[in-house]
Amino acid sequence: MEEKKVLITGGLGFIGSNLARRLVHDGAKVTVVDSLIPEYGGNPRNLHDIKDQVAINFSDVRDPFSMNQLVQGQDYLFNLAGQTSHLDSMENPFTDLDINAKAQLSILEACRKHNPEIRIVFASTRQIYGKPQYLPVDEKHPSHPVDINGVNKMAGEWYHIVYNDVYGIPASVLRLTNTYGPRMRIKDARQTFLGVWIRNLLEGKPIHVFGDGRQRRDYNYVDDVVDAFLLAATRPEAEGKIFNLGAPEPLTLEDTAKLMCELIEGANYEKIPFPEDRKAIDVGDFVCNYKAFQSAFGWEPKVDFRQGISKSVEYFRNDLSHYI
Amino acid sequence: MEEKKVLITGGLGFIGSNLARRLVHDGAKVTVVDSLIPEYGGNPRNLHDIKDQVAINFSDVRDPFSMNQLVQGQDYLFNLAGQTSHLDSMENPFTDLDINAKAQLSILEACRKHNPEIRIVFASTRQIYGKPQYLPVDEKHPSHPVDINGVNKMAGEWYHIVYNDVYGIPASVLRLTNTYGPRMRIKDARQTFLGVWIRNLLEGKPIHVFGDGRQRRDYNYVDDVVDAFLLAATRPEAEGKIFNLGAPEPLTLEDTAKLMCELIEGANYEKIPFPEDRKAIDVGDFVCNYKAFQSAFGWEPKVDFRQGISKSVEYFRNDLSHYI
Repeated sequence: MEEKKVLITGGLGFIGSNLARRLVHDGAKVTVVDSLIPEYGGNPRNLHDIKDQVAINFSDVRDPFSMNQLVQGQDYLFNLAGQTSHLDSMENPFTDLDINAKAQLSILEACRKHNPEIRIVFASTRQIYGKPQYLPVDEKHPSHPVDINGVNKMAGEWYHIVYNDVYGIPASVLRLTNTYGPRMRIKDARQTFLGVWIRNLLEGKPIHVFGDGRQRRDYNYVDDVVDAFLLAATRPEAEGKIFNLGAPEPLTLEDTAKLMCELIEGANYEKIPFPEDRKAIDVGDFVCNYKAFQSAFGWEPKVDFRQGISKSVEYFRNDLSHYI
Repeated sequence: MEEKKVLITGGLGFIGSNLARRLVHDGAKVTVVDSLIPEYGGNPRNLHDIKDQVAINFSDVRDPFSMNQLVQGQDYLFNLAGQTSHLDSMENPFTDLDINAKAQLSILEACRKHNPEIRIVFASTRQIYGKPQYLPVDEKHPSHPVDINGVNKMAGEWYHIVYNDVYGIPASVLRLTNTYGPRMRIKDARQTFLGVWIRNLLEGKPIHVFGDGRQRRDYNYVDDVVDAFLLAATRPEAEGKIFNLGAPEPLTLEDTAKLMCELIEGANYEKIPFPEDRKAIDVGDFVCNYKAFQSAFGWEPKVDFRQGISKSVEYFRNDLSHYI
C-alpha cells in the first residue's frame, strides 16, 4: 500500500481507525471521512497520535457533494461508515436507510462519475442472514434479515455488487461478525455487546448476560479484520465477491463473560431476562463459516479471544476517559 | 371480500386495476392510490367504467402524510405501487430507491402507527434472484440482484417481513414473474417486453427479439395473478412468507414472438442484437418454481399463454388509443 491513496469512510470509527493506522504505517496516503455523530463509532481519540499523518475530512456520507470531491484521485475506498445499532434501526428506520442504503448508492454514484477505477471494499454484516437455518453459516445461506439494519445493509452490499457487475467498478464485500478490539465504542452496546461489557468490567460493574447465556457467538479481533480488508482490496479474485469473516472457536455468551471476568480481579456477571425489544430481533446461536475467504486468500484469524480481549481491556484501561 | 375495506397502492396500474375490478365485483369497498406518474403503469382508463364504484385517491406512496390517512380503517392493503423499469433504475437509482424501498418503509410505518391489524400483500419480483444458478428458481435460490431495481425491491419485500416478524403486522410477499394482460402498459418496455410487443403487433410493426431468442421466460396472465393476491391475503398460513408465482410452460423469446405473430395476419418479428444497456442487466433463461405456493394454497395458472395473449391483444385492439 506504499504511496497509495486511500479513502476510508467511517475512518475515525473503530475498524476504520485501526485500518487507517495500519495503512499509515505501511506508507499509504490516507484520508478519513467521518461525521462524528455522537451515537456512532467515530472518536477523534482513535487517531489523535497520528493526526498529522492523515487527512481528516469531517463530512457525512449522506452528503453527495463532499463524496463527489473525496473519491477523486483515490486508489482505494474502504467503505466502512454505517449505522450499526440494530435497536436504533428499529426506532429510526429512515435514518438507518439513509446511511446504510441511500448513502452507499450515492458513494457509488460518486465513484461512477468521478473515479470508476477506484477499488472498493464494503463492510457488511452477518446480520443479513438473520436466524441461522444451519451452522456455521456460509455465504450460500439464505438472507433473512430480522431487523431494518439487516435489510439496509443487505441493500448497501448489493449496490456495490451491481456497480461492480454493471459498471466494472471493482468492489468486494466482507460480511463481518462480532468485531472487537482497541478503539471500539464501549459507551454502550451499539457496536456489539462486547463494547459495553468491557466498559462494565473496567468500571467494576457486573456484565449483563441476556437469557440463559447459551447462545454461541464468534468474535474477530480487529487486527485480523484489518488484514482481511487489505487482502480483499488487493486481490483481483475478490472483485464482485461477498465473503464472510469468522473465527475458529465460537463461545457461548456465558463462557465469553466468564473468560472476560477472569481478566479482572473481582469482576462478575449476572444473567438477566432478555429485554423485549432485543428479544424480538435476536438471532440465537450464530457462527460464521469463513472457509471461502480462508481458502481463497489464506486468511486466518491470528489472535484468539483470550489474547484479544486482554489487549482490548488493557487499551481501554489506559485511556478510559476518552471512551466513556 | 364482501364489505371488506381494501386499499390498493398502484391501483390505477396494470395489476392493481385488475385486482380492484375483481374486488369491486366481489363486493369489497375499494380505495385505489395512484400518482399517475407518466412513466409508470397508472392509467385512468383502467377503471374508467367503474370509477363510481371505487374511491380514487391521487397521491404518491413517497408522501407519508397521505399514507398515514389512507391506511386507517382498511382491512387489507395490496401494496403494488412501484417503479418497475430495470433500465430506469440504472439511470435514476435514487428515484427507484425512494419508491421501491423508502416509500415501502414509510407505508409500513403508517400501518404500524395507525392500523397494525391491516393484512398486507406486497408485490415483489423474480428480478431479485438475478441470473439463475439453477432452473426452475425456487424461493431458496440465493438472491443476487443484477440491477438497482432488484436491490430496492429486495429491500422493500424484507421490510414487510421484518414488520410482520417484529411488530406482528401480517404481511405476505409474492415474487412475480412476467405478468401480462389487459390494462398493462404497452407504450414501451417498462412493464416487461410483452407490453411493447403487443403495441408493435397492433401497429403493424415487427416485434424485436434481442439476441438469439433462445432465452426462456415464464408468463402469468393477470387474472391468475389476481387469484394469487386474493389467496395470499386471506390465508393465515401465508403470513410472514415469500412465494414465487410462475407458469407451467415456459417459452423461448423466439417461440413467444412466433406465437404472438400467429394472432395477427401479416405480423412478423426480427432478431436484433442486444442493446448494450439491456445486455448488462439481462438474466438469461428464467423460469420460476411456484410449487410452494401451489401446494400450500392449490393455486395453479388457469389461462395458458396462447389464450391469455389472444385476450390481451383483443382488449388493446378495442381500446388502443388510451394506451399508446
